[in-house]
Amino acid sequence: MSVKSSHEAPLAAAYRGRVALVTGGFGFMGSNLVPRLAQLGAEVRVMARSWPPQAEFDEGVHPAVRFFKGDIRDEAVLQDAVEGCDYIFHLAGKSGASTSNESPIEDLDVNCRGLLLLLDAMRLGATEAVIVFPSSRLVYAPKLPVPVPETAPTTPLSIYGAHKLVAENYLRIFGLQHGLKSVVMRITNPYGPYQRPEQRSYGVINQFIHEAMRGRSITVFGRGEQLRDYIHVDDVVEALLAVAMSPAAAGATYNLGSGTGTSLADLAALIVDVAGSGRVEHVPWPQSEASVETGDFCADIARIEAAVGWAPRVKLRDGIQDVITRVHRAPQRG
Amino acid sequence: MSVKSSHEAPLAAAYRGRVALVTGGFGFMGSNLVPRLAQLGAEVRVMARSWPPQAEFDEGVHPAVRFFKGDIRDEAVLQDAVEGCDYIFHLAGKSGASTSNESPIEDLDVNCRGLLLLLDAMRLGATEAVIVFPSSRLVYAPKLPVPVPETAPTTPLSIYGAHKLVAENYLRIFGLQHGLKSVVMRITNPYGPYQRPEQRSYGVINQFIHEAMRGRSITVFGRGEQLRDYIHVDDVVEALLAVAMSPAAAGATYNLGSGTGTSLADLAALIVDVAGSGRVEHVPWPQSEASVETGDFCADIARIEAAVGWAPRVKLRDGIQDVITRVHRAPQRG
Repeated sequence: MSVKSSHEAPLAAAYRGRVALVTGGFGFMGSNLVPRLAQLGAEVRVMARSWPPQAEFDEGVHPAVRFFKGDIRDEAVLQDAVEGCDYIFHLAGKSGASTSNESPIEDLDVNCRGLLLLLDAMRLGATEAVIVFPSSRLVYAPKLPVPVPETAPTTPLSIYGAHKLVAENYLRIFGLQHGLKSVVMRITNPYGPYQRPEQRSYGVINQFIHEAMRGRSITVFGRGEQLRDYIHVDDVVEALLAVAMSPAAAGATYNLGSGTGTSLADLAALIVDVAGSGRVEHVPWPQSEASVETGDFCADIARIEAAVGWAPRVKLRDGIQDVITRVHRAPQRG
Repeated sequence: MSVKSSHEAPLAAAYRGRVALVTGGFGFMGSNLVPRLAQLGAEVRVMARSWPPQAEFDEGVHPAVRFFKGDIRDEAVLQDAVEGCDYIFHLAGKSGASTSNESPIEDLDVNCRGLLLLLDAMRLGATEAVIVFPSSRLVYAPKLPVPVPETAPTTPLSIYGAHKLVAENYLRIFGLQHGLKSVVMRITNPYGPYQRPEQRSYGVINQFIHEAMRGRSITVFGRGEQLRDYIHVDDVVEALLAVAMSPAAAGATYNLGSGTGTSLADLAALIVDVAGSGRVEHVPWPQSEASVETGDFCADIARIEAAVGWAPRVKLRDGIQDVITRVHRAPQRG
């Protein structure tokens, strides 16, 4: 979507010629962040395990990007990638609450040990860099009154949430011990281009659109009354850029959401409406999903709005239309 | 010390003939817990990386104990040790805030991955067992008003504290997901027999006694005004036994301390007084210690007192005298 910050000049001033590393730069959020960084004139580095098909990236981005091929746990590649960076957006990692409960040790190794290795590399080669970390709404206790502020209790239901929380603690402790600058973003439910439709736990909007565009049923667990806070990835990207460049944000923890709660049933109906195809089907909750269901969620986003002047801009209907347009434009693999 | 619960009969009823595993059973707390379990008639298992010199264990204990030799991360040994257990006291692990900040990945592997492996072994072979986990006062935010209740904010200053906190989350999540029963004990500053004097971060009382008994200076950082909550290991052992057998305690988190704050300077003076030798010397704070200094701490122990009727019994002066008596009795290696 063509949503740009009104602070385009300060953004360009902050990023032009500066070195920005995006770990997991070919994932959902990274694929949206990297072109924007390139557009702002940053020297962009991407660290990822494999290179994406050329077609998945906007033309004109590749030449501006320097690739570091490796797993986040590959210390030698990591040290190279981090060396001399001004900004580090640590988007590499495993996601998904259900998956993490099935494979907690794999989640631990990638998400916790991987971050510790990154922080150690920063301590050695990029002591002045700011690291922006995508935490999650899943750090919060379930079933809190909405909207949920950053001060709410943090007793996660999933290993994923528990590991996001320990990651937040790592960043705070490395700040105290070694002066590393970090910003924690507790992201709600992001959606948008480059999100794989098979990632249900993470990308329910894209999955629903995927089904609707094929004229299939959208499956909603139970009555679908649970509220979620859906935020378009363009809004996420602008928020990441805003906090990384803001001295006021160093050391802070922010909710990053739209600040609006939408029920799953309403979301499904909206998608069928915008798509003009598909239908909504309600089925009983599967056990694996019910056990990690967190109840209603909507983020209180007053803190980030006050601190850096960021606010969400993409309306849900427009965001859904945007994804549908792109689904039409580029054939999906699913 | 000869401190026994007044509930000796219920304890014997709960433990006689029951299978109790103590991981890290030759460490400080384990060496105190194991003989008590044996005395209560439990079938005691100890899992540890190496066997202690016979002399370190009270006579008559070894024959009642079954040994499982292995690191906590050795899955095959772990599965054997856990199989069919009624109680699991997970005392294996690395301790020390400063050490954890120097070697966070080693701390992660032993304390987090080790616990995940144990929980997985329980899920497979001991679904009805109760696991008692020694968390730490170091999970709390620094410089809280004392006494600190279990509901206080948890933003640890050390990797050690952060990993204790994620361990607490693991136990809660495995309870929700798999029905595993656990009790979390946030232990303050335990002291007593079998604690090695070289472990300053963990065993300041034993270290101070060690110096005083040799007529040396006890080193106190700064003015030594910071309060700590020292609890004798006999009181710790009785609390572990009490919560493991209590259905009311399953899923709970308790502070485990004396409930009394003592300044480090007062502690040092008391030790010199009881020992009749040594002196107190104040030196500036070393950076590595200052950065993990948590300010005054004293635990609010109302929750565990109300839930299981446990209360601390050993007075600090008596506990110090007890350690001194044992230091005299058995020659130290240091």
